[in-house]
Amino acid sequence: MAICIFITGGTFDKTYDEIRGRLSFGDTHLPEMLRLGRSRVDVSIRTLLMIDSLEMTDNDRELIVRHCAQCDHSRIVVTHGTDTMVETAAAIAKGVTGKTIVLTGAMIPYAFGSSDGLFNLGSALSFAQVLPPGVYIAMNGRVYAAERVRKNYEARRFEEV
Amino acid sequence: MAICIFITGGTFDKTYDEIRGRLSFGDTHLPEMLRLGRSRVDVSIRTLLMIDSLEMTDNDRELIVRHCAQCDHSRIVVTHGTDTMVETAAAIAKGVTGKTIVLTGAMIPYAFGSSDGLFNLGSALSFAQVLPPGVYIAMNGRVYAAERVRKNYEARRFEEV
Amino acid sequence: MAICIFITGGTFDKTYDEIRGRLSFGDTHLPEMLRLGRSRVDVSIRTLLMIDSLEMTDNDRELIVRHCAQCDHSRIVVTHGTDTMVETAAAIAKGVTGKTIVLTGAMIPYAFGSSDGLFNLGSALSFAQVLPPGVYIAMNGRVYAAERVRKNYEARRFEEV
Amino acid sequence: MAICIFITGGTFDKTYDEIRGRLSFGDTHLPEMLRLGRSRVDVSIRTLLMIDSLEMTDNDRELIVRHCAQCDHSRIVVTHGTDTMVETAAAIAKGVTGKTIVLTGAMIPYAFGSSDGLFNLGSALSFAQVLPPGVYIAMNGRVYAAERVRKNYEARRFEEV
Repeated sequence: MAICIFITGGTFDKTYDEIRGRLSFGDTHLPEMLRLGRSRVDVSIRTLLMIDSLEMTDNDRELIVRHCAQCDHSRIVVTHGTDTMVETAAAIAKGVTGKTIVLTGAMIPYAFGSSDGLFNLGSALSFAQVLPPGVYIAMNGRVYAAERVRKNYEARRFEEV
Repeated sequence: MAICIFITGGTFDKTYDEIRGRLSFGDTHLPEMLRLGRSRVDVSIRTLLMIDSLEMTDNDRELIVRHCAQCDHSRIVVTHGTDTMVETAAAIAKGVTGKTIVLTGAMIPYAFGSSDGLFNLGSALSFAQVLPPGVYIAMNGRVYAAERVRKNYEARRFEEV
Repeated sequence: MAICIFITGGTFDKTYDEIRGRLSFGDTHLPEMLRLGRSRVDVSIRTLLMIDSLEMTDNDRELIVRHCAQCDHSRIVVTHGTDTMVETAAAIAKGVTGKTIVLTGAMIPYAFGSSDGLFNLGSALSFAQVLPPGVYIAMNGRVYAAERVRKNYEARRFEEV
Repeated sequence: MAICIFITGGTFDKTYDEIRGRLSFGDTHLPEMLRLGRSRVDVSIRTLLMIDSLEMTDNDRELIVRHCAQCDHSRIVVTHGTDTMVETAAAIAKGVTGKTIVLTGAMIPYAFGSSDGLFNLGSALSFAQVLPPGVYIAMNGRVYAAERVRKNYEARRFEEV
């Protein structure tokens, strides 16, 4: 069973920019993470965007929706910043049917030793393999249907609504 | 949805014994791993054994089966050494019905920077929440039914039979 | 032989601010680093500042100079951002005599798995114990006298002048 | 100033043997550690042995002494298991004069996230650059003359005698 992974950036992929002394985006860490997890899932990875999800425009979301709709696989994982993950999940839910699509991300960049990213990636790939068609958010061991989740910004976690 | 986690040891929990300069077992790393993954899954953790799975006896397996059968939850994750994970899965499958039980472990101890443990734990907890009753092995992003899996020792991975 | 460690911030101590999704300063990582290195050096640690060295003012430098001059120990390590480490070293050299003072920092924050911080800290503490009185910069295994070093911004390293 | 690094194994370089599920020796981690520390010290690395220091024979020590005596550089770092580091330091002190030779190692293998190895390496390379000719042990931020150190096995640290 093959899974398509679309990269869009987010905390997951933030890296340290030595010259400017701040976080920025470089290449995705996904392949390195799959190696570390010794993943034996058959995946095809494609980087669509590499941005902070607060800067994601409607055009960007259309791009993601279009790729989810057009890709050959019926099981998809999308890595995404947590700030607007709910909005993108809603956009995908409106535009794509008949596929199992799981959005995931991280609260702490993978490049930090203390990241939750590897745990979330293992979780998202697993949910994507067994859940029925629909759009979901998988974070910190839990999974939420796109239409029944919100981000609790104070508590810095997702919760059912 | 609450999940019961039973610890039995295995590579997952091997730690460095400074005095004797070799690997041994101390306390389980599970709580630390759940903290790192910022897991929001409702779990109860219980350490049943803390041994290398090559040293696991029939009595040890009976102990695991009995706890799986008697625990209040219908969704269970068992951490286990990979060498005899298949045998224990078979024993559980024979002794317990009506529950979703997922065995998982690691190829590299969690205490090593290069461990696959956190990825596997995220995966196992996810499969345990959504798979129908049965006994499974979740390793490296994949899930296998207890009766259809073997460990390929040369390739150091699990595969379907 | 006791060493006084003054913390001033810099890349060394940058941490991830989850709420705002960017790097910021929290508590210093120094005690954790000394624990990891199992340091058996007798140190007293004091946080003077917790800022990016690009934002360091003349007043801030005076504060550092004053503490170096007044502290009871004759061997001192100062953690500092790399951008203006040379300027601060010069200010200390002008204001303090008869003490061995070593400035150090990191190219990558300690909170990142890929940090050079632990290596630099082991190095700085060692140079501070054996070098004659003077002001030095210890970075990436090398040591430079305060009056004979510059930061090469393109190459992102220090070099003798 | 060039430093010769001789590798002999020890806890420093223990790695996880997946097939046998225990610690063993593979390639040295030294180059990776120098990269992580972004070391700018001019070094030449040579692996003499790759063994547990408890298994080190008189012949092995002769080999180390001979290489220390014959190498072109007058500043040398030797990585070594902690159990018999003191004996090897004594052997080198008897056989080599006029050079600064620093032995170092680790209490926890570098491959573990919690290793003191990187701190010790930064320290040893620094002491090796500035100490006068003699044989020393550099561990956990401290440096000891070869003839005035013992390993305290209960406390798992070195101390002056």
